[in-house]
Amino acid sequence: MRDILPADKTRRERVLSIIRERYLAHGFDEIETPVVEDYTYLHAGIGGDNEKLSYNVLRRGLDADAIRAGAEDPAALSDLGLRYDLTVPLARFYASNRGQLPGVFRSIQIGPVWRAERPQKGRYRQFVQCDIDIIGDDSSRAEAELMVASLDAVDALGLDGSSVRINDRRVLDWMLDSFGFTADERPGVLITIDKLDKVGPEGVAKELRERSTSAEAVDAFEAFLRRPQTREFHPFGERQIRKALPQDVPADLIEHLVGIGAAVAAGRGESDVPLVFDPFLVRGMGYYTGTIFELAHPSVGYSLGGGGRYDGMIGRFLGQQVPAVGFSLGFERLVDLVADDADSVVRAVVLIHDADVPVDELVRHKAALIAAGSRVRLERRTKNLKALLERSAADGYTSFATVAPGTTALDLKPLS
Amino acid sequence: MRDILPADKTRRERVLSIIRERYLAHGFDEIETPVVEDYTYLHAGIGGDNEKLSYNVLRRGLDADAIRAGAEDPAALSDLGLRYDLTVPLARFYASNRGQLPGVFRSIQIGPVWRAERPQKGRYRQFVQCDIDIIGDDSSRAEAELMVASLDAVDALGLDGSSVRINDRRVLDWMLDSFGFTADERPGVLITIDKLDKVGPEGVAKELRERSTSAEAVDAFEAFLRRPQTREFHPFGERQIRKALPQDVPADLIEHLVGIGAAVAAGRGESDVPLVFDPFLVRGMGYYTGTIFELAHPSVGYSLGGGGRYDGMIGRFLGQQVPAVGFSLGFERLVDLVADDADSVVRAVVLIHDADVPVDELVRHKAALIAAGSRVRLERRTKNLKALLERSAADGYTSFATVAPGTTALDLKPLS
Repeated sequence: MRDILPADKTRRERVLSIIRERYLAHGFDEIETPVVEDYTYLHAGIGGDNEKLSYNVLRRGLDADAIRAGAEDPAALSDLGLRYDLTVPLARFYASNRGQLPGVFRSIQIGPVWRAERPQKGRYRQFVQCDIDIIGDDSSRAEAELMVASLDAVDALGLDGSSVRINDRRVLDWMLDSFGFTADERPGVLITIDKLDKVGPEGVAKELRERSTSAEAVDAFEAFLRRPQTREFHPFGERQIRKALPQDVPADLIEHLVGIGAAVAAGRGESDVPLVFDPFLVRGMGYYTGTIFELAHPSVGYSLGGGGRYDGMIGRFLGQQVPAVGFSLGFERLVDLVADDADSVVRAVVLIHDADVPVDELVRHKAALIAAGSRVRLERRTKNLKALLERSAADGYTSFATVAPGTTALDLKPLS
Repeated sequence: MRDILPADKTRRERVLSIIRERYLAHGFDEIETPVVEDYTYLHAGIGGDNEKLSYNVLRRGLDADAIRAGAEDPAALSDLGLRYDLTVPLARFYASNRGQLPGVFRSIQIGPVWRAERPQKGRYRQFVQCDIDIIGDDSSRAEAELMVASLDAVDALGLDGSSVRINDRRVLDWMLDSFGFTADERPGVLITIDKLDKVGPEGVAKELRERSTSAEAVDAFEAFLRRPQTREFHPFGERQIRKALPQDVPADLIEHLVGIGAAVAAGRGESDVPLVFDPFLVRGMGYYTGTIFELAHPSVGYSLGGGGRYDGMIGRFLGQQVPAVGFSLGFERLVDLVADDADSVVRAVVLIHDADVPVDELVRHKAALIAAGSRVRLERRTKNLKALLERSAADGYTSFATVAPGTTALDLKPLS
């Protein structure tokens, strides 16, 4: 976790307000859930590996005896925990507030989450997620709305040229079945396939063999992986999707993907569909049930966000199945990529004063400049005036004036 | 803790952006600190009663033996806690980042804090604080800047006519000394005086007697409290302040208060100083060392925020004394008071469609309206169209159109 200083904070707030404004335009509504959720919800088996990385809040009012008695049982010591994502809280929120929400609910959630990851460069234990989700729509309209809104948001941040890698968990399941993997093996096999970009086809085949899964299934899968046409994903369309997959993939799965492509193209008003079909895109979470996708930008090798359909999760909280699909922007990554906005500079004035200027005179000068639309900072004159002016310019101030006792008119000069 | 639904969230974000914009104009810089802080900082004796209300985060990686061994020692079980205010984190932040901050640092902090208060109407265990602080300025310029900025912020929220109740801990200390209370008795006596508005002079005198503090001191204090002129605080000026206090109050304390009044009047450009001197204003926190103040609005009986000077606290973290003064707006109270902004209505369109409209047609209509500056929500037609339209209007949508397969031009109609 880290402190965020003024220059970073300004940039973060600017990125947030652009994302928020675009998502609102696309008909999403912002909500907020508490930062802490019930321990039982956070450990219901939905959060995958993140459950293990969660911070638990010590139950209040426990005496030493109660602590000793609960030493073997985390739930006895904790009734609350810090959320590790915004998806589990959204499912809980929807179950709690359904009566007050529209039939198809499009939510925006922006807020911090916590994971006790091993500290490493660029990774923080507290970080911000920006999620949009559509609950209550089982059609591909929902996927298309999420993708068009997200592409619009990253465009607005100056990251145009982004594209969406897409796959469907049902395609993956069908493929693995067709190669001869059993349903039990599937989760482990998916974890290995997820490493394809890192270790290549040989690495994947080697790891699958070590998992001692069926040798014939692994051979068939490796042969498929090594076909040249398997990894030619461009441009997006029925022909390419069919070419990239084994024969006999059910037509409805392909139609679903093609339909999303047509809708995203319509929403973008572009003939070049900004989608890339990738039959080996897995995404880690166990709760995905259909479409999965990631946002990519040509300037970086990692994804800017991702999401997918998770039709089973709301039912865990509500006791009634409700379809849902979501997309999460990697806020911290976006902040690093987005350029500073030269247009956002406001007139900002530093008033440099001597110690003997009466307080009310200073405050009056400051108020007059603020009333005229400036941002104003008071600075007491230091011996090294040059350093003070340089620091003020670095902090975004654009002009300065000096104030002596009795100064009536300010002589504003530009801060180079 | 509670969920925040779209209508509330919209209002909260609007209030936040107005406060942020005004504080930035007044030369404050926004920072952000992690939501969790080290247990030792949160329990260093600075946070007063709030320390007892804090949520502790269970140390990760403890096995059952370690938990049993630490059962008597909260610090063995917790290394982190949820912050209960933004002042302790600010002091820690300043000590950690001083080299990168200006000589006089004016900070804005906006974020949630947590206290395990007994649940009651209008009180939440997670709530937002909006703080501004000035670190490194021991002059009354700092107090004046805080007050002018805060009055400006509440004006911008439509709560003009607000005023600041002001006192100084040194005035209180001097008064209690002069009545014959000992320094040891002072904290308890201040807690009792803080109840004056609730229990009246008799109640205060009664409680002081029960505390078995010096009977003569209590008699003298009660006689002072009962003087008619003691509670005539208006208008703000040297004469009124002198009149409201015992004779012989040191002149420099009065000059300090009068100086703040003159500076706030200059900053407001008003001849009527929006200050009210109240010699019985105490404010609960033990860390205050000088000026203390609260923001009041004639429409409500409670304060909208408060603050004061706490020159001793930064030194606890930095090992070197640095003067500081801060002001905290009661965000949740402001949100309840602020009227909805009729001007903020944007053109917002609901597109009502039948189930058989192709997804790409729908998404194309939506995109065209968004490109033209509207906010757009898709709704599938329901049997009760009237209810759907009413719900859309309640959610802030201003017009609607129906879409059938092949619709080319939308016929937008106003939503009542």
